[in-house]
Amino acid sequence: MDYQAVLDEVAATVAPQVGRGQAAGYIPALAAVDLGGFGMAVADVDGSVTGVGDWEVPFSVQSISKTFSLALVLAQDGESLWRRVGREPSGTPFNSLVQLEYENGIPRNPFINAGALVVTDRLQSLTGDAGTAMLEFLRTQSDNTAVAFDPAVASSESEHGDRNAALAHFMASYGNLDNPVPTVLEHYFWQCSISMSCRDLALAGSFLARHGVGSDGSRLLPAREAKRINAVMLTCGTYDAAGDFAYRVGLPGKSGVGGGILAVVPGRCTLCVWSPGLDLRGNSVAGVAALDAFTSLTGWSVF
Amino acid sequence: MDYQAVLDEVAATVAPQVGRGQAAGYIPALAAVDLGGFGMAVADVDGSVTGVGDWEVPFSVQSISKTFSLALVLAQDGESLWRRVGREPSGTPFNSLVQLEYENGIPRNPFINAGALVVTDRLQSLTGDAGTAMLEFLRTQSDNTAVAFDPAVASSESEHGDRNAALAHFMASYGNLDNPVPTVLEHYFWQCSISMSCRDLALAGSFLARHGVGSDGSRLLPAREAKRINAVMLTCGTYDAAGDFAYRVGLPGKSGVGGGILAVVPGRCTLCVWSPGLDLRGNSVAGVAALDAFTSLTGWSVF
Amino acid sequence: MDYQAVLDEVAATVAPQVGRGQAAGYIPALAAVDLGGFGMAVADVDGSVTGVGDWEVPFSVQSISKTFSLALVLAQDGESLWRRVGREPSGTPFNSLVQLEYENGIPRNPFINAGALVVTDRLQSLTGDAGTAMLEFLRTQSDNTAVAFDPAVASSESEHGDRNAALAHFMASYGNLDNPVPTVLEHYFWQCSISMSCRDLALAGSFLARHGVGSDGSRLLPAREAKRINAVMLTCGTYDAAGDFAYRVGLPGKSGVGGGILAVVPGRCTLCVWSPGLDLRGNSVAGVAALDAFTSLTGWSVF
Amino acid sequence: MDYQAVLDEVAATVAPQVGRGQAAGYIPALAAVDLGGFGMAVADVDGSVTGVGDWEVPFSVQSISKTFSLALVLAQDGESLWRRVGREPSGTPFNSLVQLEYENGIPRNPFINAGALVVTDRLQSLTGDAGTAMLEFLRTQSDNTAVAFDPAVASSESEHGDRNAALAHFMASYGNLDNPVPTVLEHYFWQCSISMSCRDLALAGSFLARHGVGSDGSRLLPAREAKRINAVMLTCGTYDAAGDFAYRVGLPGKSGVGGGILAVVPGRCTLCVWSPGLDLRGNSVAGVAALDAFTSLTGWSVF
Repeated sequence: MDYQAVLDEVAATVAPQVGRGQAAGYIPALAAVDLGGFGMAVADVDGSVTGVGDWEVPFSVQSISKTFSLALVLAQDGESLWRRVGREPSGTPFNSLVQLEYENGIPRNPFINAGALVVTDRLQSLTGDAGTAMLEFLRTQSDNTAVAFDPAVASSESEHGDRNAALAHFMASYGNLDNPVPTVLEHYFWQCSISMSCRDLALAGSFLARHGVGSDGSRLLPAREAKRINAVMLTCGTYDAAGDFAYRVGLPGKSGVGGGILAVVPGRCTLCVWSPGLDLRGNSVAGVAALDAFTSLTGWSVF
Repeated sequence: MDYQAVLDEVAATVAPQVGRGQAAGYIPALAAVDLGGFGMAVADVDGSVTGVGDWEVPFSVQSISKTFSLALVLAQDGESLWRRVGREPSGTPFNSLVQLEYENGIPRNPFINAGALVVTDRLQSLTGDAGTAMLEFLRTQSDNTAVAFDPAVASSESEHGDRNAALAHFMASYGNLDNPVPTVLEHYFWQCSISMSCRDLALAGSFLARHGVGSDGSRLLPAREAKRINAVMLTCGTYDAAGDFAYRVGLPGKSGVGGGILAVVPGRCTLCVWSPGLDLRGNSVAGVAALDAFTSLTGWSVF
Repeated sequence: MDYQAVLDEVAATVAPQVGRGQAAGYIPALAAVDLGGFGMAVADVDGSVTGVGDWEVPFSVQSISKTFSLALVLAQDGESLWRRVGREPSGTPFNSLVQLEYENGIPRNPFINAGALVVTDRLQSLTGDAGTAMLEFLRTQSDNTAVAFDPAVASSESEHGDRNAALAHFMASYGNLDNPVPTVLEHYFWQCSISMSCRDLALAGSFLARHGVGSDGSRLLPAREAKRINAVMLTCGTYDAAGDFAYRVGLPGKSGVGGGILAVVPGRCTLCVWSPGLDLRGNSVAGVAALDAFTSLTGWSVF
Repeated sequence: MDYQAVLDEVAATVAPQVGRGQAAGYIPALAAVDLGGFGMAVADVDGSVTGVGDWEVPFSVQSISKTFSLALVLAQDGESLWRRVGREPSGTPFNSLVQLEYENGIPRNPFINAGALVVTDRLQSLTGDAGTAMLEFLRTQSDNTAVAFDPAVASSESEHGDRNAALAHFMASYGNLDNPVPTVLEHYFWQCSISMSCRDLALAGSFLARHGVGSDGSRLLPAREAKRINAVMLTCGTYDAAGDFAYRVGLPGKSGVGGGILAVVPGRCTLCVWSPGLDLRGNSVAGVAALDAFTSLTGWSVF
């Protein structure tokens, strides 16, 4: 596959969509971003990386970090996590407290905020420092020691974090957090505030296409667990648009309100695309269009 | 692939699970079934069919018919259906009226009962006789003229159909049904009451693995549409267990409370498994286990 | 109390509000009504009736009939009704299916549509002809043999009755209806379509102010039961505005989308006001204002 | 009225019910209470107080304090409060986050926890020290300088306050709190932890029966506002049992999980009853029974 030719064609196809949508409004540090950015990278299972546009420009990973915290917990702790969080699509917008109440404090899946708070809580218990554990993992896998927290974003998240604080206290009231609420929130906001480029993220997510083997050649997870993370990404990875994303793109994917989307072609490659304009459901407009174009050109939908 | 060897091993593996669970209790004609049955069939994209156990014994297809009514409408009517029904997982049990109310009479997806009623309504408008249209399609694709409605099941569905009647009247109150409620219900119950074997269903669903080309070699749907039905099956096909099914089995699948499950390995084969004992979420206990064993043995998960 | 002077002052006070709001849009036979009508009547516990404006003009009683069907069932059947319907405010708009689903087919109270369908079902079982039973009761109590069903309204209700049909089938699916759904709906629509004037309704509701003794001097209910109907009217009688109605008016009241409101000053009088313009919650704009003015002038709030 | 005779008869009638039910389990400092206590007091509008049983034993007022914080805010701030909190019954259990989400952070009424947090927030803004403002008010009105916070209860509330913290953060995320969440929670927990006897509470609530005039003869509220608080008590004062309480007792009432209930016979007297055994909806078993007996003996239901 001539990735460069494909990416160039994808970029040309989606150019009219770059700049559409809106930046995430509820985090001031993100609201100021220039909407005109667009980048895309492909990390082949052979280890090579190819990119187009702003593929080496760092952006705020936001919810894409949920993929990595889930992987780190499953790697260290196996299936016991599923006693505290489900793996069903949520069927309602990503911050909803409704289902959490009807289901007694057990979040529907690890990719809604409530579920990611539980995963962060578990990672904190396992490592003693969830934020640092994730940062080290991402630096190693992306082979880039410049990967870092953005303190302005973290601070902005924390100042506007009442909804996540509500979720955390609510789960604590059901006994579904082991660490103090402020600790869990702090590490959760740190993870969301990590800055990485498309190149960094495609490499860091290589283990998802390589059946559990990281970009550095080490086995991070059993093949079965890596496949299962892909399954959760496909059914739950794009907020309340997971069905539509599967329908249009047909790949496991995890989006973030920073405008990034991580996607996987199992056995072939890991993709990352970024463009900060979001649709009404919180996914990058040009990013979804680019992945749609990529699967149309390559025929690499899982379906 | 030596399908017979694989199916034999699958059957041996799941034998302890056959008989577990319960028959669908709310339809008297189904409640009386013997729980000890088990059959499985594979229709390869080359047209060959292989089976094990009771793979030629007819059973009530129930919600598996929703896959075929969706395909028939998409084939004749294209994407306009999606103005009347969504394609997002429902996140609540399959008969729920709650989301239907919050979303103004637009069902979340075509595989919950409300969505299938809309699809049936559209098929009725397109064909003038939705029940006969589906029956003819299934007879042709399965190459079996003995495929037929079971009048006892249809009558039992109708007598115990107050929940579906409530759904239909509720959507009618939002203007989302074109035909009279009793007509839509009649054709819906007929479709659910069709009896087919694993062999018949695997053949009838071949177009899903053959990118839209039917078992008789004719093109039923564009490749893109066939892939999209697979996407909807994966995200919405197994009631409130779609996430868990994707996690464990990793294939597009559609289950029915008659104990059957239709599953697809895109580009390779279509599978059908049957065993009438259901788990709490309405899926065949031994059926899910058999598909899990099949993908473990073959490595053919889409992930 | 010089009722005539009070009513004249009330009418003058609310004159600017007559014509505001909208007629009930979902029943075509009601949508055509002239919004300029206004009438009000007071039936004192001594048996005298006083009125102002269009107080002798018949209008469609709609949900006000729910008060009388509840009284007839409690009179004949006592407290056993409460096993099939609750008496708590619903907290959501009056047709909502949501709470009905969460509470397994038991309606929150007898004044939401679902609850009134259960009451009608019980009245049908007790009398064999719920519609006629209510009509005879209302003719006797209002001393007016001209009280009658309006067949055009009944037919209009039936043609646009999908939401009520959905509610009835839904409760039937939980086993909470004894009679066939079409029978219950027919009698329910008949009751709603009765035409009466403010004079007729104030007299027919006299038993609520007279602690259970009807306008003809006969005891219809024990005093305790009559008080209890008043309690249900106050907490549940004006759809999702019961709290606001209690706050502003401070009397037990039951409204209908025909624009009428029946209200009770226990031990003193029964009031009926009518003006067809409705607010967003389905209550007569001028009607609520008139009752507010009445209690301000007389000081007769129960609080 | 010979209050002593009535109270003696009430106490004898309900004696078999004292000890039934359970103490509030979620606040450890309350869970340890002896279930055998029972007291009742009546403060006539003439200023006299009569009691029976443990009517001078202090207990934790808990949610009864919501009545007083509402009155203090309405007294200083008038109707503007209603832009931030509704006055409709909630229709779901008292801590529910569901309706709060569907209604964009506006609580249904001031007597559910979310609503009381908004009232406390407003009282804090108006007074600079909501806890002290309420304490001074209660000491003056009960003519008892010994009324005080119970620090053990306040500490216990705070330690087990994750659900209230979730509610407060959730409303803050909608911009419906002016003060910092920890400040609002601190004053809210203080108010709930005040200890008073039946005598103290009946006197402190005298203004509700005296149309706004306090037990010390000063006007606290306009008559109209006092009536309106009674209306909110009747429709919303006893959690999800308001309809049932109106049906059985027929008086405005506000209960607390400490086992107390404050009730009002407008124009006649204010009642307070206490017995710590609670029913499933959080109301005192013997307390409700005592008020039921009181209105049966006196005929003083508002209906």
